[in-house]
Amino acid sequence: MAHVLGQNQYGKAENRIVRVHRDSARHEIKDLNVSVSLRGEFDDVHLTGSNANCLPTDTIKNTVYAFAKEYGIESAEAFGILLARHFVDDTERGVVHGARIRIEEYAWERIRTPDGSAGFIGSEKEKEEVEVEVEVEMGHSFVRSGQEVRTSEIVYDGESVRVISGLKDLVVMNSTNSEFWGYIKDGYTTLEEAYDRILATQVTARWKFGHSGRDGEAQPDWNHSYTQVKRHLLEAFAETYSYSLQQTLHAMGTRVLDNRAEVDEVRLELPNKHHFLVDLEPFGLRNENEVYYAADRMYGLIEGTVHREGVVPVIPVA
Amino acid sequence: MAHVLGQNQYGKAENRIVRVHRDSARHEIKDLNVSVSLRGEFDDVHLTGSNANCLPTDTIKNTVYAFAKEYGIESAEAFGILLARHFVDDTERGVVHGARIRIEEYAWERIRTPDGSAGFIGSEKEKEEVEVEVEVEMGHSFVRSGQEVRTSEIVYDGESVRVISGLKDLVVMNSTNSEFWGYIKDGYTTLEEAYDRILATQVTARWKFGHSGRDGEAQPDWNHSYTQVKRHLLEAFAETYSYSLQQTLHAMGTRVLDNRAEVDEVRLELPNKHHFLVDLEPFGLRNENEVYYAADRMYGLIEGTVHREGVVPVIPVA
Amino acid sequence: MAHVLGQNQYGKAENRIVRVHRDSARHEIKDLNVSVSLRGEFDDVHLTGSNANCLPTDTIKNTVYAFAKEYGIESAEAFGILLARHFVDDTERGVVHGARIRIEEYAWERIRTPDGSAGFIGSEKEKEEVEVEVEVEMGHSFVRSGQEVRTSEIVYDGESVRVISGLKDLVVMNSTNSEFWGYIKDGYTTLEEAYDRILATQVTARWKFGHSGRDGEAQPDWNHSYTQVKRHLLEAFAETYSYSLQQTLHAMGTRVLDNRAEVDEVRLELPNKHHFLVDLEPFGLRNENEVYYAADRMYGLIEGTVHREGVVPVIPVA
Amino acid sequence: MAHVLGQNQYGKAENRIVRVHRDSARHEIKDLNVSVSLRGEFDDVHLTGSNANCLPTDTIKNTVYAFAKEYGIESAEAFGILLARHFVDDTERGVVHGARIRIEEYAWERIRTPDGSAGFIGSEKEKEEVEVEVEVEMGHSFVRSGQEVRTSEIVYDGESVRVISGLKDLVVMNSTNSEFWGYIKDGYTTLEEAYDRILATQVTARWKFGHSGRDGEAQPDWNHSYTQVKRHLLEAFAETYSYSLQQTLHAMGTRVLDNRAEVDEVRLELPNKHHFLVDLEPFGLRNENEVYYAADRMYGLIEGTVHREGVVPVIPVA
Repeated sequence: MAHVLGQNQYGKAENRIVRVHRDSARHEIKDLNVSVSLRGEFDDVHLTGSNANCLPTDTIKNTVYAFAKEYGIESAEAFGILLARHFVDDTERGVVHGARIRIEEYAWERIRTPDGSAGFIGSEKEKEEVEVEVEVEMGHSFVRSGQEVRTSEIVYDGESVRVISGLKDLVVMNSTNSEFWGYIKDGYTTLEEAYDRILATQVTARWKFGHSGRDGEAQPDWNHSYTQVKRHLLEAFAETYSYSLQQTLHAMGTRVLDNRAEVDEVRLELPNKHHFLVDLEPFGLRNENEVYYAADRMYGLIEGTVHREGVVPVIPVA
Repeated sequence: MAHVLGQNQYGKAENRIVRVHRDSARHEIKDLNVSVSLRGEFDDVHLTGSNANCLPTDTIKNTVYAFAKEYGIESAEAFGILLARHFVDDTERGVVHGARIRIEEYAWERIRTPDGSAGFIGSEKEKEEVEVEVEVEMGHSFVRSGQEVRTSEIVYDGESVRVISGLKDLVVMNSTNSEFWGYIKDGYTTLEEAYDRILATQVTARWKFGHSGRDGEAQPDWNHSYTQVKRHLLEAFAETYSYSLQQTLHAMGTRVLDNRAEVDEVRLELPNKHHFLVDLEPFGLRNENEVYYAADRMYGLIEGTVHREGVVPVIPVA
Repeated sequence: MAHVLGQNQYGKAENRIVRVHRDSARHEIKDLNVSVSLRGEFDDVHLTGSNANCLPTDTIKNTVYAFAKEYGIESAEAFGILLARHFVDDTERGVVHGARIRIEEYAWERIRTPDGSAGFIGSEKEKEEVEVEVEVEMGHSFVRSGQEVRTSEIVYDGESVRVISGLKDLVVMNSTNSEFWGYIKDGYTTLEEAYDRILATQVTARWKFGHSGRDGEAQPDWNHSYTQVKRHLLEAFAETYSYSLQQTLHAMGTRVLDNRAEVDEVRLELPNKHHFLVDLEPFGLRNENEVYYAADRMYGLIEGTVHREGVVPVIPVA
Repeated sequence: MAHVLGQNQYGKAENRIVRVHRDSARHEIKDLNVSVSLRGEFDDVHLTGSNANCLPTDTIKNTVYAFAKEYGIESAEAFGILLARHFVDDTERGVVHGARIRIEEYAWERIRTPDGSAGFIGSEKEKEEVEVEVEVEMGHSFVRSGQEVRTSEIVYDGESVRVISGLKDLVVMNSTNSEFWGYIKDGYTTLEEAYDRILATQVTARWKFGHSGRDGEAQPDWNHSYTQVKRHLLEAFAETYSYSLQQTLHAMGTRVLDNRAEVDEVRLELPNKHHFLVDLEPFGLRNENEVYYAADRMYGLIEGTVHREGVVPVIPVA
């Protein structure tokens, strides 16, 4: 029986790039990991050994670095759209039919040093409330802030653009306001119901934009949008009194949709990073929700999508 | 506008289990990492905080360990089918509609020790050709053999079973018999054509079985099938004179389909682990394809599916 | 010839513990990874199979968790001193002669949410300068801040205590103010001199305290000391115009000694995280120190100790 | 008070090199990760910003690759000795006083394919016992065999050479023949005594050679020695009926000293990879040492040295 070559794609993965914008004394940096994947008329490359339709992955890499110089990097999303359009629209004889750009971005903050004077932070009414050291930023010194990795995926098929932004490795914990009880009991149940537990998870989130890139449609402010989505995820996690991680997941997703009109689908993957209460009774001690063993594996894994009515969800299941 | 709860699933991930079969003096061990994910009527868990339809992930974990005792583990695939059927068919009120079991298996070999006598290995005709130390196996001592990790995914929807087996982290290299030239040149091309290069990759492969689990259909011999698929992947890699990694990918996929009737779809992910020839001319030396720098990142990434005609491919793109 | 049992030690490694201090509505958490290692009269355990002198590692683990409840965790260092003294002073028949406690600490910050009112931050003179959203802290919601991991090692030999604190995985970068030239040239030199380069490193630092724990000597304020040492390391990195990473290392070490009287030895390990300027000339572009390839391996590795005169350095070479 | 620059060293770490020896149709490959560290007259580099005494790490890297071409790589140890001697003996003005070379080696085996004929393996007396497929090796196709990583450290101070070889990540398990009881009980003891448990560990071993490199002293056969030491470690692990992991450690170390005259010191680090018996009684099942949960953390960690009488041990404690 004949065999068929099915879906295939190729590209250059994990192009690590640091772009310094030196337009002022105060440098700006972007630190990205860019992966490119192309689809198109590549049957001969697989079947005959002819590379006539093959844009080498080395060239793909060169293009990423050259574009970083030519166009700068305002945001990962805008940079990815530029790249995706180039590979599909500009490759000779139209052999590239689709491009997918995935980008991880690592955040840096400026190193700050106290300038010796006193300062304060507070609301208008209570401006003396908190005294702080006044800090000055160094113009070109940075420290990597590892709270989370920002992600984005840009897909272009020659007609429209689809942008999915996201984050991963954002670890959060509520030390109370979480319960879990009233669940199914069967012959394999040993878990005791919990009325005050730690809830901790490592958030992976992806959210799709309504933006389609057609007809000169204006792009969202990708960086501002990212900051706000992250804020709403954190706030919803913190403010939700939780009866299950599923409930928290749903609250996080809807919070984003409620507040960010440019987003129409949110998908979350939330591992339940179990914190087990240690039994201290053998040592004559009462553990009043104070001492926990933080386990690595196994872990609960909760995944789900929340989307606007009428939108067909597209973010794939992991 | 109202928001909709879309695709969702949950379960217990990475249940690490070692099962010792002690039926004879020669122990057998299975070393697995089992991840379970359930789909079903879980809307209330997300929306109302009611856990009445929630089978706790702790119970899922208990079930995995109890089943390992009750049924033993002949193969990851058969064990996964048992688990998937249980969660869907046996959970109360039919609230679980689908189950996905993913398993990683870590291989162990017996520790062998020389017994002091002489031995040999060879064909019938040339039996003196290679003398070897005769080794005896210890009955209960093992060393982990890290060539690759065996993977499997079992999905059951209440009617039929779909099994995708695979492997990952299998690192292979041809030190010659690989070329790359005749590709597209554009303004970003700097790569020089290569007529003798190292080809190295870290194979991730997944292959789907025709087996559907319906009507008492007999299961394949999963372990034998695995051994043979791995063998054919290795042989095709070794025997293909390559003009591109795409061509090697296609040869590997078709080799499996040609030889294993139980498999009807193969998907491969092949990172091109670049080995760059080091320029030694500044030191007055000629590098005749002898000294390479093995790079970590960036890397080419080649992905593709080969399937039988008439089969609708289902293995998802990573 | 007889064989001798030399240096040996054992213990329980990587006890993951989260301690919640719930004394007020504003919870405090400590997130530690505690490793214990004991030395003593363990010859028989190795030689005869008698465990009469063996305190099981399981008991060591239990002790860590019980002490976390009984004494709380004010700082990793104080907690480690308590544990070390216990294992040596309290284990029966004095069979434990020395204890080493190593602790990693993961930092968390509170999740903050805007309260809707306007605020500002600034020096007394310029208080309107920067307007900020006023944020309120949630009392029991945290996000892990991954800038660095805090480390400490406490060694107790029955008489005195030695404390070495430190940090790791603190990634910093200067986008200018770094040069490298005037070095040795030999037959293997190809590097071009650099007059403006990126200097980036991932700081591992360890520093020893003068504190010996004898005679009721008061302990330093470990947490404040840590914050200040980190600050001085960052400031010295940022403010040093660098002709080599060695010079930067020396500046960082001396800065700590200059400012923190409680510290008498500093050791630094600074991998030179190379950022290579990408050659864009083939594409008709000039790379004016703007586009870099961030390499993983190989990397320069610079290590060194700075200590006060008269102090015998003890922090071991990695 | 003045500050003193103490011990310092620098070099190029993790030079990844693949060396193909193509002298015959049957290629040989060596796959190494080479880290170089130099000590010497580097005070000015730290203190004044003068690099006059600095051999750039880039040059160190070039030297590693050039030497791989010029001298080939017969063994990591012999290659490391060559490099160490070069950096100390040949660097201008004798500014380098000592060199330390650390090498990781990754093992590859040839890909073998059945040739279709029947074969067998067995002792002279029982030659029909086991029938095997006869396999032919491909001359230039390899698969990485991940059982363990081979390590070596070569230190040269201008006079003599010290070689410490080793291995890491060798995971072994005995499914029986291990007990643990008769230990100290105190107020924190909850562990139950075990009379039949799984013993599993991930071996890190280092062993020092008597070889000093002086006076044209002949080098050991490093590769043969390595194979034999690994064999004796495995055999001792498998054959020791164990009352503690300490006892097993001691048996492994002495076995090497008993059998390998070229080795005079052995140090082992053995994490106790706990396999906990799962309690199946709540489900009406008896777990007769058949079903285990393989835990990641915390873990016991057993470390110790065995050396010949009269030898001063030098392998450092981790």
